[in-house]
Amino acid sequence: MSFKKKPLILVTNDDGVDARGINRLIEGIRTLGEIVVIAPDGARSGMSSAITSIFPIRLNLVKKENDLTVYSCTGTPVDCVKLGINEVLKRKPDLLLAGINHGSNAAICVFYSGTIGAAFEGCIWGIPSIGISLCDHSPEADFTQAVKYGKIIAEKTLENGLPKGVCLNVNVPKGEEVKGLKVCTQTKGYWAKEFQLAQDQTGKNIYWLTGEFTNEEPDNEQSDEWALDHGYVAVVPLQIDLTAHHFLKEIKKWECFK
Amino acid sequence: MSFKKKPLILVTNDDGVDARGINRLIEGIRTLGEIVVIAPDGARSGMSSAITSIFPIRLNLVKKENDLTVYSCTGTPVDCVKLGINEVLKRKPDLLLAGINHGSNAAICVFYSGTIGAAFEGCIWGIPSIGISLCDHSPEADFTQAVKYGKIIAEKTLENGLPKGVCLNVNVPKGEEVKGLKVCTQTKGYWAKEFQLAQDQTGKNIYWLTGEFTNEEPDNEQSDEWALDHGYVAVVPLQIDLTAHHFLKEIKKWECFK
Repeated sequence: MSFKKKPLILVTNDDGVDARGINRLIEGIRTLGEIVVIAPDGARSGMSSAITSIFPIRLNLVKKENDLTVYSCTGTPVDCVKLGINEVLKRKPDLLLAGINHGSNAAICVFYSGTIGAAFEGCIWGIPSIGISLCDHSPEADFTQAVKYGKIIAEKTLENGLPKGVCLNVNVPKGEEVKGLKVCTQTKGYWAKEFQLAQDQTGKNIYWLTGEFTNEEPDNEQSDEWALDHGYVAVVPLQIDLTAHHFLKEIKKWECFK
Repeated sequence: MSFKKKPLILVTNDDGVDARGINRLIEGIRTLGEIVVIAPDGARSGMSSAITSIFPIRLNLVKKENDLTVYSCTGTPVDCVKLGINEVLKRKPDLLLAGINHGSNAAICVFYSGTIGAAFEGCIWGIPSIGISLCDHSPEADFTQAVKYGKIIAEKTLENGLPKGVCLNVNVPKGEEVKGLKVCTQTKGYWAKEFQLAQDQTGKNIYWLTGEFTNEEPDNEQSDEWALDHGYVAVVPLQIDLTAHHFLKEIKKWECFK
């Protein structure tokens, strides 16, 4: 695509506006266009595509400088995207970037991640949208490779666009030795052994969410977990049409249907 | 499928354990098997597949009687399902029912709904899972048709099973005149005009989430919105593999990929 104006890029995340990941991303993509950041005012990990309807949402201008405006928001990542599109931006953005997330959003994490929830929301609005995550949860995580490859995929997406209803889930492996970008599929698997039982200060049972990922297809070289294990940046195109088209013919045989 | 034991059915929702919809559903399906209810202790609408990791989760036994045990939980709908499978149930349930939701979860609402989040979670665990919603938000909503058709689809699912990675999204139209069950696809569309600007008691701006659904394919007779508009119960099979398989070949042509 060619742009008459500078591309307008909406940036959000689920770790909050002060997180290192989003700020490293903003520095890295400053040259790509006009950047508007609308991100939660604190951590919203695991918020999926949650929306806030019971409470009102507040939006605060954090800073405004040349081609960079930053807002914080009391809502979820999806609320941030919705506020951006409906209330803040003068026109539809050319690109939405969510991240850089602290920790992997590969495989089945696409269901739980607020970062990917934000990317889906951009996609629902017809905006080329990308979730970017670094598979490193440590406070000293090195975002160098994630910024480098995040910028490349952002540039390529501005150049080529994405089909309607498709967004990208980009996961970058930990470490300095990254082999490059690889197109992948969402790894089949689930989280198991999910709770740690503990007691509160009065002796009552409480459960802490934890868990281990069970990979159901560890040998699938097309899967995003395989790519990450082998040093590649995994790029999975995701779609918002969740209809199980392959099952339509079969379920119609159930005798209950008209 | 034939069952040696009574089928074990896990029931949850996103409107809370005291909501009318879930209690009408429980009454309606009591004869189908052993029922274990684990539902949020209050409203969790719009929670999508959100999970609770920052706070511990609490589980409280509400009642236990013949083939019916009811727990309330401080977490999200997905937390309820995870607690059920990991901590409460002695074996994997034969069926998961989420609902009956107060209000439609058709079309793009599959992304925001806690009810559908719960159904996806059951599906991730390999449990035949169904989200059931009534397209009526009023406090006096009549759940008769939703219970009737929810039970039929639950029975058929116990009988036939569902393919791995597929769950069902069932939406029942408002009113007494329901024409029957129809297999559908997820309607393409999005929510627009999403916020109402207001002021708090100090005069500061606040935003209330609201919105209107824009149907991008009003004439598609296969879509769930069309079915609901024409008096049918819409049954959409949804899948948890979100990979946009149709775009893999095309994106691999981008010159950045290995």
